[in-house]
Amino acid sequence: MLKAGLVGVTGYTGMELARILATHPSIRLAAATSRQDAGRRLDAIYPFLRGLPGAEVVLTEPDAADLARRCDVVFLAVPHGVAMEIGADLYDAGVRVVDLSADFRLRDAGTYETWYKPHTRKEHIACAVYGLPEIYAEQIRAARLVANPGCYPTASILALHPALKHGLCDPSGIIIDAKSGTTGAGRKASVSSLYCEVADSFRPYNIGGRHRHIPEIEQELTLAAGRPATVSFNPHLLPIGRGILATIYARLARPASQEDIQSLYEDYWKGAPWVRVLPAGQLPETRNVRGSMFCDIAVTVDSRTGWLILTSAIDNICRGASGQAVANANLMFGLPLDEGLGAAPLVP
Amino acid sequence: MLKAGLVGVTGYTGMELARILATHPSIRLAAATSRQDAGRRLDAIYPFLRGLPGAEVVLTEPDAADLARRCDVVFLAVPHGVAMEIGADLYDAGVRVVDLSADFRLRDAGTYETWYKPHTRKEHIACAVYGLPEIYAEQIRAARLVANPGCYPTASILALHPALKHGLCDPSGIIIDAKSGTTGAGRKASVSSLYCEVADSFRPYNIGGRHRHIPEIEQELTLAAGRPATVSFNPHLLPIGRGILATIYARLARPASQEDIQSLYEDYWKGAPWVRVLPAGQLPETRNVRGSMFCDIAVTVDSRTGWLILTSAIDNICRGASGQAVANANLMFGLPLDEGLGAAPLVP
Amino acid sequence: MLKAGLVGVTGYTGMELARILATHPSIRLAAATSRQDAGRRLDAIYPFLRGLPGAEVVLTEPDAADLARRCDVVFLAVPHGVAMEIGADLYDAGVRVVDLSADFRLRDAGTYETWYKPHTRKEHIACAVYGLPEIYAEQIRAARLVANPGCYPTASILALHPALKHGLCDPSGIIIDAKSGTTGAGRKASVSSLYCEVADSFRPYNIGGRHRHIPEIEQELTLAAGRPATVSFNPHLLPIGRGILATIYARLARPASQEDIQSLYEDYWKGAPWVRVLPAGQLPETRNVRGSMFCDIAVTVDSRTGWLILTSAIDNICRGASGQAVANANLMFGLPLDEGLGAAPLVP
Amino acid sequence: MLKAGLVGVTGYTGMELARILATHPSIRLAAATSRQDAGRRLDAIYPFLRGLPGAEVVLTEPDAADLARRCDVVFLAVPHGVAMEIGADLYDAGVRVVDLSADFRLRDAGTYETWYKPHTRKEHIACAVYGLPEIYAEQIRAARLVANPGCYPTASILALHPALKHGLCDPSGIIIDAKSGTTGAGRKASVSSLYCEVADSFRPYNIGGRHRHIPEIEQELTLAAGRPATVSFNPHLLPIGRGILATIYARLARPASQEDIQSLYEDYWKGAPWVRVLPAGQLPETRNVRGSMFCDIAVTVDSRTGWLILTSAIDNICRGASGQAVANANLMFGLPLDEGLGAAPLVP
Repeated sequence: MLKAGLVGVTGYTGMELARILATHPSIRLAAATSRQDAGRRLDAIYPFLRGLPGAEVVLTEPDAADLARRCDVVFLAVPHGVAMEIGADLYDAGVRVVDLSADFRLRDAGTYETWYKPHTRKEHIACAVYGLPEIYAEQIRAARLVANPGCYPTASILALHPALKHGLCDPSGIIIDAKSGTTGAGRKASVSSLYCEVADSFRPYNIGGRHRHIPEIEQELTLAAGRPATVSFNPHLLPIGRGILATIYARLARPASQEDIQSLYEDYWKGAPWVRVLPAGQLPETRNVRGSMFCDIAVTVDSRTGWLILTSAIDNICRGASGQAVANANLMFGLPLDEGLGAAPLVP
Repeated sequence: MLKAGLVGVTGYTGMELARILATHPSIRLAAATSRQDAGRRLDAIYPFLRGLPGAEVVLTEPDAADLARRCDVVFLAVPHGVAMEIGADLYDAGVRVVDLSADFRLRDAGTYETWYKPHTRKEHIACAVYGLPEIYAEQIRAARLVANPGCYPTASILALHPALKHGLCDPSGIIIDAKSGTTGAGRKASVSSLYCEVADSFRPYNIGGRHRHIPEIEQELTLAAGRPATVSFNPHLLPIGRGILATIYARLARPASQEDIQSLYEDYWKGAPWVRVLPAGQLPETRNVRGSMFCDIAVTVDSRTGWLILTSAIDNICRGASGQAVANANLMFGLPLDEGLGAAPLVP
Repeated sequence: MLKAGLVGVTGYTGMELARILATHPSIRLAAATSRQDAGRRLDAIYPFLRGLPGAEVVLTEPDAADLARRCDVVFLAVPHGVAMEIGADLYDAGVRVVDLSADFRLRDAGTYETWYKPHTRKEHIACAVYGLPEIYAEQIRAARLVANPGCYPTASILALHPALKHGLCDPSGIIIDAKSGTTGAGRKASVSSLYCEVADSFRPYNIGGRHRHIPEIEQELTLAAGRPATVSFNPHLLPIGRGILATIYARLARPASQEDIQSLYEDYWKGAPWVRVLPAGQLPETRNVRGSMFCDIAVTVDSRTGWLILTSAIDNICRGASGQAVANANLMFGLPLDEGLGAAPLVP
Repeated sequence: MLKAGLVGVTGYTGMELARILATHPSIRLAAATSRQDAGRRLDAIYPFLRGLPGAEVVLTEPDAADLARRCDVVFLAVPHGVAMEIGADLYDAGVRVVDLSADFRLRDAGTYETWYKPHTRKEHIACAVYGLPEIYAEQIRAARLVANPGCYPTASILALHPALKHGLCDPSGIIIDAKSGTTGAGRKASVSSLYCEVADSFRPYNIGGRHRHIPEIEQELTLAAGRPATVSFNPHLLPIGRGILATIYARLARPASQEDIQSLYEDYWKGAPWVRVLPAGQLPETRNVRGSMFCDIAVTVDSRTGWLILTSAIDNICRGASGQAVANANLMFGLPLDEGLGAAPLVP
């Protein structure tokens, strides 16, 4: 049984990691940290875990040396800026690390610093592998530091990869109109995330090139296309808990039929157990992936206007964060990719 | 006191008309029809109206001659195809008509027939005025038959009109990524609209040029631009009751600053009491217009990618349907535009 | 035009007062206070009010002397303990006061101090009138300080008053199983009120005689019954915004038929414009009163078990707080009871 | 691998059975029936199951002989009245049956006929075992026909069993104020279950001794108490998908402290893996059991009024229906009780 540490348990990605590990056959939660709740049992803050493995873990203050001694792998579910320090220390101490923050996702430190803040552990960036299993499984198996992808990038990259890899569409001028459930806003006390501010409403935010997932998306799309990709990325907040649905508009580089693109997509993702290319005529729904690792993708050609429209749905905190982190840990330790991650979507 | 008839009271637009008329100072509900509920009192099917004016109206089978005798104006809240017949008959009988269906919205009968079905009362199309008060107030005042705009068109046209009228952006290649609350799916018994099929989820539908509001939007945008407009219109279903939010992407025809476009929009809609151009930095939310006639619009230039992004929110069944219908009736009878329509948005 | 002041604008009752006054024909918002948002315009914190009367008011720090100079009536939407001080000062300065907190609701200072905290302005308790218009309209008309009832007490007292006044049921051993929307939890930043902690869930709280509305309910029920009333009051949190529904169980003191009690209730509340005793067979729903002053009550005799079951629904922040406060102000200034409060319920 | 048949796949309990069996290690879905969808693949009607075991099953018309040949166990997820016929036929054909309807729950055929309809297979009633594993595990292991408990009875009986078995409270005069998510209303097309009729609202239904779960609850409580139990059972509809929370009021038969009852409950349910008696001060929430087999129970003494208040939460379609059905099948085939049922609750 592998022993996992969890740094930052009070947010939704930390909560989801604790939930997933509670039923993982080969990895168990051995340590969990929280500055605000140190000294409490995990099931005191998350009563839904009562009676499940890991529920009895007592939260501690974060301490890299202590975690390195007690754990085989440590998941970092703390904000960017915080993660880089403890992540690099844990890496140096020889423990495997999966970082759910953005700190090691961008290969170019300058780009990181433009969009985020000064990077204090730049030397570790090159040690990190971008943890999207469908694309980087080989590298992840060999990695000791995995930069777990962002939620919007996961949904966007899986949807666009086949089209860009095959040169079907123009990598510049892509529009990603993305909608996320409110778990994406985090678990901090904040008036704007209160039930009565979110329920029965819908709103855009960070419209017009302001969201920090843009450079991450463009980095991976550029690699796929082999030339610079630019996206107008525009997120919205949904009155749901879990789920992202991205509606993506790309200009077809050359005429292509619905059937051609459909079969290209089906071929491209044939071996990927979690990417479900929907049959023509079906469209994704966030509930169809709730609590699961699936990414449901539909391909539509708007022949009147010449746009290729991709719709892509994931569970943002499972597939787009904590489940993906566990998949990466599975790969790092030679376990089956989907071990502990086989839950059917919870519908309704 | 003017007497209003309401044909088709069992859907959400019929319900909303009954609600609005219950507090209108100058128009009262005098007749309401429903095939399935004929013989029942209005408040037996809508108990929330108990004790309010109109609640005591007994529903009857629809009968144009009878309605024409008893009413000064008749609102049609029945499906397209049904509305054209009774609407034309009522018009011929001399009563004023506001038709909430699509039957008289498209000036070209051939376009109607391409998107909908055969039109059996083509001769009345030319009698109808498109009932968007901000643009056609003069014509509406003189009209006897008003084609009330669709909900998506209302949100889209008000957002794009200034930009197209001033040639700011290319009228071809516009993308409208629209999200609607579930009242838009109607009040028919249907598994796909059940609470448990819609709640805590989000889904696209009619992706890729299939929604019937497309020709209506293109008709009005073409008139605004003075040359053919084409849109890729893609709707989604929100787990909310009321509200539409459209995120609209248009290519800037020439470089323009955020400030220029912001002030152009503020000037353009200065005299329109219901169009609120939000200050730079604010974005619309559907709840901010809930139960009201407001259309909140924000203008954003994505300078990295050259897209003009418009976000526009309305209450789909008030502003986008029944409230707009009452506004049109107000104009037709020389009443103040906003009489009976001054409710503040219900937030939260 | 009467000038109103509003102390504490950042909570949901403050927001609702601003919303109601925006369309009140005879009272306009002249001053509003907020420690945290002083210096900002009202519509900067509540964009849904943009363009409506009062939206331009600039928030100030609370100052009783200043408010007394500028206002005819001041509404207090601040927490208990805070309200007693500024409320008493405003009263002494001669301005009329409607206090939405609990500070002046309990006639017995000792009871107040048992359930709340030390009372520092005890001498003003006797000056206050309990502001339930259906029961105390005469006293409210003459009052200068009105203690606006709590939300749960409003729904509970209106439902039980006829039965207790007529001795139909035993005033001891009453059970009130109450369910409230999340606006009742306030607008403070708090993890437990986040969307993702409340949505798609349901929970009890303060079970077993711990909620502070108990002494207020018992005070009024005791007055109605003419002998001591005791209630087991147990609240629950609903994943909705507005609305309270109380299910109330009382032992019949003597055999009584459904019909007898139904007609007694209809007679009792005949003259009360906002209490709607539903016809036998109908039950209340919170949405049927949303955004309105109605209290919908159904009477059911469970003949198998001998319980009288009352179900009662109100909008907790309109009828159960801010709308009721405006009704009290209407009475205090000789205006029609329902002036500015005639909105039809917003359904759906 | 055991082969399971599923009669009636289009409702929520059928959907949930398909979902649970998709990840069950020892039972796989071999046949599924649906009159309306015969000929379609399971994942055509439930796209969330795409790619999971069982998704490829083609739906057929129900046929007892055919099912008996192809299956080791058949789950009946059809309405009462329909289930008794096919259930008895399958039983006679020698296949094991778990019936999720009410048809074999009531030991007294006369009581069944009073509350439901004429019973056409009375001779099979005595063959059936009431499938509440915490109470009847031994009998279930030996059974060939299991009457799966209702959702409300599951939550109510587990909460009251310890108190009644130990004579802590009076079995007459119990009040069960129950609240259920909308999956409980079924998956039939119906206006009253539409999203816009349920969301952001809350309503009671069947108030006053009218719900058909009453005789089932009273049957089991009477057995526990050893003398006749009567309940006033009053259900409400919650705007959530999954979940029941029952708030139960029982008169203490003799004085008892919170601590005594708490420790009695903890002892009573010590060996039951799914019943979680919450520590004093904690209360259940429906989300804490979502998608799981847990029943969370809290014990509170309202010492002011003498009521014992039990709050009890389950997932109505997992624990209260389909998950419990699978647990019963596990027992019938000698599998571990919780095989395939170990999912952690999905929070948030």
